[in-house]
Amino acid sequence: MIEALQINAQRLQNTLEELAKIGQKGDRSICRLAFSDEDLQARALVHQWMEEAGMKVRVDSAGNLRGTYPGKQPHLPILATGSHLDTVPSGGKFDGALGVVAGIEIIRVLNDHQHHLNHPLEIIVFTDEENTMIGCKAISGTASLNPEDYQTKVNLSIIDALDKIGGNWHTLAQVQQTRQDIAAFIELHVEQGAILEQFGKQIGIVQGIVGQQRYTISIKGQANHAGTTPMNMRQDALTAAARIVLAVEHLAHSAPGDPVATVGAFQVFPNAPNIIPGLVKMTVDIRDLDRQNLNHLVTELKTQLEEVSSATQTQITIEPLLNVQPTLATPKIQQQIATVCQDLGLTHLSLPSRASHDAQELGRCTDMGMIFVPSQGGISHSGKEYTPDRDCVQGAMVLLHTLLKLDREYN
Amino acid sequence: MIEALQINAQRLQNTLEELAKIGQKGDRSICRLAFSDEDLQARALVHQWMEEAGMKVRVDSAGNLRGTYPGKQPHLPILATGSHLDTVPSGGKFDGALGVVAGIEIIRVLNDHQHHLNHPLEIIVFTDEENTMIGCKAISGTASLNPEDYQTKVNLSIIDALDKIGGNWHTLAQVQQTRQDIAAFIELHVEQGAILEQFGKQIGIVQGIVGQQRYTISIKGQANHAGTTPMNMRQDALTAAARIVLAVEHLAHSAPGDPVATVGAFQVFPNAPNIIPGLVKMTVDIRDLDRQNLNHLVTELKTQLEEVSSATQTQITIEPLLNVQPTLATPKIQQQIATVCQDLGLTHLSLPSRASHDAQELGRCTDMGMIFVPSQGGISHSGKEYTPDRDCVQGAMVLLHTLLKLDREYN
Repeated sequence: MIEALQINAQRLQNTLEELAKIGQKGDRSICRLAFSDEDLQARALVHQWMEEAGMKVRVDSAGNLRGTYPGKQPHLPILATGSHLDTVPSGGKFDGALGVVAGIEIIRVLNDHQHHLNHPLEIIVFTDEENTMIGCKAISGTASLNPEDYQTKVNLSIIDALDKIGGNWHTLAQVQQTRQDIAAFIELHVEQGAILEQFGKQIGIVQGIVGQQRYTISIKGQANHAGTTPMNMRQDALTAAARIVLAVEHLAHSAPGDPVATVGAFQVFPNAPNIIPGLVKMTVDIRDLDRQNLNHLVTELKTQLEEVSSATQTQITIEPLLNVQPTLATPKIQQQIATVCQDLGLTHLSLPSRASHDAQELGRCTDMGMIFVPSQGGISHSGKEYTPDRDCVQGAMVLLHTLLKLDREYN
Repeated sequence: MIEALQINAQRLQNTLEELAKIGQKGDRSICRLAFSDEDLQARALVHQWMEEAGMKVRVDSAGNLRGTYPGKQPHLPILATGSHLDTVPSGGKFDGALGVVAGIEIIRVLNDHQHHLNHPLEIIVFTDEENTMIGCKAISGTASLNPEDYQTKVNLSIIDALDKIGGNWHTLAQVQQTRQDIAAFIELHVEQGAILEQFGKQIGIVQGIVGQQRYTISIKGQANHAGTTPMNMRQDALTAAARIVLAVEHLAHSAPGDPVATVGAFQVFPNAPNIIPGLVKMTVDIRDLDRQNLNHLVTELKTQLEEVSSATQTQITIEPLLNVQPTLATPKIQQQIATVCQDLGLTHLSLPSRASHDAQELGRCTDMGMIFVPSQGGISHSGKEYTPDRDCVQGAMVLLHTLLKLDREYN
């Protein structure tokens, strides 16, 4: 009975540990930048594991490492799962890696039982999730074909970078796929937030990946002597910027739904104790699952910038930096994940993902779902990122059984 | 009649221009850092001018260049005027220089007429006004005698720096003087603010030099993912810091008198668009003429820091960086300046100096007064610093005739 298939908890943990050694630093954080030698080493190891588990492995032009486990009906579009191996400069051992390792473990389980789904099952290691997202974007057909739009973290052009990992920039466009190729994609990932922990739930069913709009805002006042310029003769760029920071916070707090808005980068010029700041540059990042809400928040922000500008006699400009549309998870996949959780006796919670994931791009070209497991203290992008073994295994179990259900659903 | 003595406008301008050539850069700003070769060059030129004008010149242990024009009653304490020759890295040609050049011009006028006051008249070029203020502080007896308390802008220890300009660190304490040595000190300086221009007045009579308290404030929150951390689970150091910036502004606006308060240096960590700021460091600079007001403002600020800390769940610490007591100008000197203005038909305004000056330290050991002339647009510490010729000459005239009056006043 395939319903009885079990993840091998010890094997899953060992595989995760083995992978974590690559790029690990003294503080136990992991530096495995996409296209780095460490990335190559991790990809080679995963490549080997894929082959050992009975998969046929290829690297597509975007450098995505793709292992296929044959289906009983080879003409069917594939079912796919996977995630990424690259990390931020001081990352953790679960972000991305868990989704890849769980996929491999699932194939090992199927292979152990010589069981094949109807659909071919593909494990995808996406290229450079933490930065350009070129891997998943190439598949969804949203990758830019202008090499100057890419800036890798390893001092290589995107052309050379893809070449290094076995991709091919010149045939990037051919990577694009549709639901005729991929019936559905489902990704297991650590939450990178503290919602599951806060609500004491074991599994998160992702409703969708929030849209994200990012802007740079520049506030130009007049630098002046902090002693000799009376309060009523100042054009202080920092006090204007402080109003904007608080307006951004207030907007997110008071809007419907559950948006987040953050001023993260913030620079003051000339930045000296005895000079009234003449210029402030900041970024604003706004995320929400609802496209209309998101647009409304940005409109509101722009209105408030005008009010601050006129109240403080500063010039304020806003420039778009990033605009990512929300991606909703396919309702029937969310439903299947919930059913699996009930079958397995796991508590679950539906929530948006407010971080980017490869699934966000795959969801633009086919059906998509995501499974979250808890992140202790909500910490991520840090050597302190931690998800207990049991949670990792539970996530892999839910992924396995959801794939089994989708195999029937998509027949 | 000494009442008819006139400043030679052309000679004053020529001398100012000659001095401005030393350290002038392509953008016409001046870089004449204390203890630099340019500073040495300017001091040598002024030394020569002093001797040519009939002064006896010496350099004291603090490196102050002091030219004495003999008095009719050599046993009397001196009357002193002067200012500084050093500039900030991109300074103007009036800040400091005008006070020195006007002093020399006054001696030239007296010398032309073979006129001597009762008091010996001393022109003092103070050492390093723009940074350590060691020159004026040594005279007032407030200079630190620990060489580690000094950091010069030219990569020299204070010991070597003083040596370079003819001073002597080891006998610094002997520079201290009292009102038995200096009957009164009066300084002519450009306003470095726009009050005189705004009110259309020709001469500013300084009521005193404001006290200044400077602090560093550190706000510690929790850096976290800008996407995955809901608004109600954040400890955002930047939104807390924004409240403080606005509180500082509001304090200065709402306090009695005319204080100024500035957050000038402001740094955010880790300063990335997708990370909630975990740490902000800022400086707060508060200035007022009234010591009690100033202390009250700082007390109020500390209360507000506690409120912000508890409202934002951040840890806020405040550390003192600088504490300069206000120095009031001697009332009878302010009165004499006003009388001179009336005699000369010049409009005048009483105002505090919110910038530091050598007079601020001299005012701690003897009677002190300051004369301001307008700064166009209030601009200072810039190559665009400008005071029209006529205003410079009027300032020198007021200085000359105030010295003549003080000579009688202090008999």
